[in-house]
Amino acid sequence: MSKTAIRIVVTGGTFDKEYNELNGTLFFKDTHVPEMLALGRSRLKVSVRTLMMIDSLEMTDRHRRTILKHCLNSRESRIIVTHGTDTMEQTAEALGKAARQKTIVLTGAMIPYKFGSSDGLFNLGSALAFAQSLSPGVYIAMNGRYFHWNRVRKNRKTGEFEETNLERADR
Amino acid sequence: MSKTAIRIVVTGGTFDKEYNELNGTLFFKDTHVPEMLALGRSRLKVSVRTLMMIDSLEMTDRHRRTILKHCLNSRESRIIVTHGTDTMEQTAEALGKAARQKTIVLTGAMIPYKFGSSDGLFNLGSALAFAQSLSPGVYIAMNGRYFHWNRVRKNRKTGEFEETNLERADR
Amino acid sequence: MSKTAIRIVVTGGTFDKEYNELNGTLFFKDTHVPEMLALGRSRLKVSVRTLMMIDSLEMTDRHRRTILKHCLNSRESRIIVTHGTDTMEQTAEALGKAARQKTIVLTGAMIPYKFGSSDGLFNLGSALAFAQSLSPGVYIAMNGRYFHWNRVRKNRKTGEFEETNLERADR
Amino acid sequence: MSKTAIRIVVTGGTFDKEYNELNGTLFFKDTHVPEMLALGRSRLKVSVRTLMMIDSLEMTDRHRRTILKHCLNSRESRIIVTHGTDTMEQTAEALGKAARQKTIVLTGAMIPYKFGSSDGLFNLGSALAFAQSLSPGVYIAMNGRYFHWNRVRKNRKTGEFEETNLERADR
Repeated sequence: MSKTAIRIVVTGGTFDKEYNELNGTLFFKDTHVPEMLALGRSRLKVSVRTLMMIDSLEMTDRHRRTILKHCLNSRESRIIVTHGTDTMEQTAEALGKAARQKTIVLTGAMIPYKFGSSDGLFNLGSALAFAQSLSPGVYIAMNGRYFHWNRVRKNRKTGEFEETNLERADR
Repeated sequence: MSKTAIRIVVTGGTFDKEYNELNGTLFFKDTHVPEMLALGRSRLKVSVRTLMMIDSLEMTDRHRRTILKHCLNSRESRIIVTHGTDTMEQTAEALGKAARQKTIVLTGAMIPYKFGSSDGLFNLGSALAFAQSLSPGVYIAMNGRYFHWNRVRKNRKTGEFEETNLERADR
Repeated sequence: MSKTAIRIVVTGGTFDKEYNELNGTLFFKDTHVPEMLALGRSRLKVSVRTLMMIDSLEMTDRHRRTILKHCLNSRESRIIVTHGTDTMEQTAEALGKAARQKTIVLTGAMIPYKFGSSDGLFNLGSALAFAQSLSPGVYIAMNGRYFHWNRVRKNRKTGEFEETNLERADR
Repeated sequence: MSKTAIRIVVTGGTFDKEYNELNGTLFFKDTHVPEMLALGRSRLKVSVRTLMMIDSLEMTDRHRRTILKHCLNSRESRIIVTHGTDTMEQTAEALGKAARQKTIVLTGAMIPYKFGSSDGLFNLGSALAFAQSLSPGVYIAMNGRYFHWNRVRKNRKTGEFEETNLERADR
């Protein structure tokens, strides 16, 4: 029995932000996912692919179509999408309506990985586990939990993800 | 629908070791699990219980019976056991033969959480996810993967867990 | 023989910036100086006083007069001023022209202390040492070096402090 | 005016210890001094030389003669010696009696640099500053302070260095 292959699709978000010490702003350079996998001593068979490196507030429908297309075309049936938390639920929705044969897990972080006190490593660990064990569908993995794409929202006040009572229309 | 309750049973292991700066040795004080859950911004309903604080090389059959009994008596049906990696597979076996109605996930770390470069946060994240999503049984969650209790061994040379071809007798 | 007393005057700067995980911006809360002194196991007799908590780009002449006045009025003759690096040389100049009886050392950081990879702890260690050992005068301690207030500038391209050949007018 | 050149003599000690994740013991590999200088954004002109990599409890008179000889023969007149804290005062004494023309500063750490919560970066920053600013003599730089070689001892109970009232015979 071979190890499950997982694709990790990188789109940016707080997860991968870095501090520019020359001007005091946050910016993107390369993804830290490989470094994080090494730190976690991961022995999973993964392929990491950086699709974009943007703040999720800048993510457009066009970006979401790119992500969806990439997920559909990937050889792997188990996929993780790293994503900013601000619009993670919208991207989950865009994927959830169209990608029904795969297990896709979106995750991110509230604090950049490079800042030491990040939740990113915890979230990546849980996202990889959910991607291996949940049945096909699109999920968000944050705060140690998983949420179905059509029953989740980010609480702007607490920064935490929570379940909604009403489903989004699953057209 | 309420959140799943998870019990976290702490037994010690590298996970929770600290450095004694007065004599340069490693020792146990309190578990870091609550601090790690806070860092991961976990919103899971968990109850943490420290059963023992020992190096897993010192774990005896008696200790294992204590862990088993605690797992069987816990109200929760989803349980994580933090454990040293050296004899994790033996404890998994002791639990695997007797605790068949619950999802029990053993996890640990190669580097103490307090040492900064630890794999512990990643492992805890994945263990919590597996505990929520795997069907009843006893598993080890390490290296981003999960292993059935009777098909796993630690490779002493690499420090990694790997699947064995032959099952341990499942008496 | 008693230990030398040192006053640490906190004014903000990158040193003390934190990351607001709810909106992704940097902000000030409390100073980290006491935490840093504890980490460094400092046994110096210090008194920490937060005068302001601002980005040094926002520092005005009025702020500088407040700092100067505080330094002059302090009981201690050895003083450290934590300060943003962008206008550290201007504040050094303001102090250098007026505070000639005390050893005043300005220091700061390129990366916030809370971000893990900060130069702050190194700089604080060197500033405290310079404050104990240099003769009266106003200095900047950055990059492991010390600079006289009227012979220093920050190189905006590299983020490093360097000696200037020409003195500022020492009126 | 050129920058002062400083020699950094590495002898091991807690400073440079690492955790062996395969057997849970502490060991020495390479010195972290260059990495620490980079983190501190040091722009000092230094030359780092590893003389030995040992626990200071294992340091013999022979080792101390090697260090002394190296200090005397170095081109630089300002020298830092990284050293375990347990016998730092003995090595300071061995150097103090014989190396009177140079400014030599011994420093170390209570917690290994690699463990995240180390005092090492703070100590290195202060040692470099003292090496630049103190007059010729042999000193220990720990806990933010400096001590003359013949007036210092490590308090075994607190792990802190403190001044002694009586001088060691300065033969």
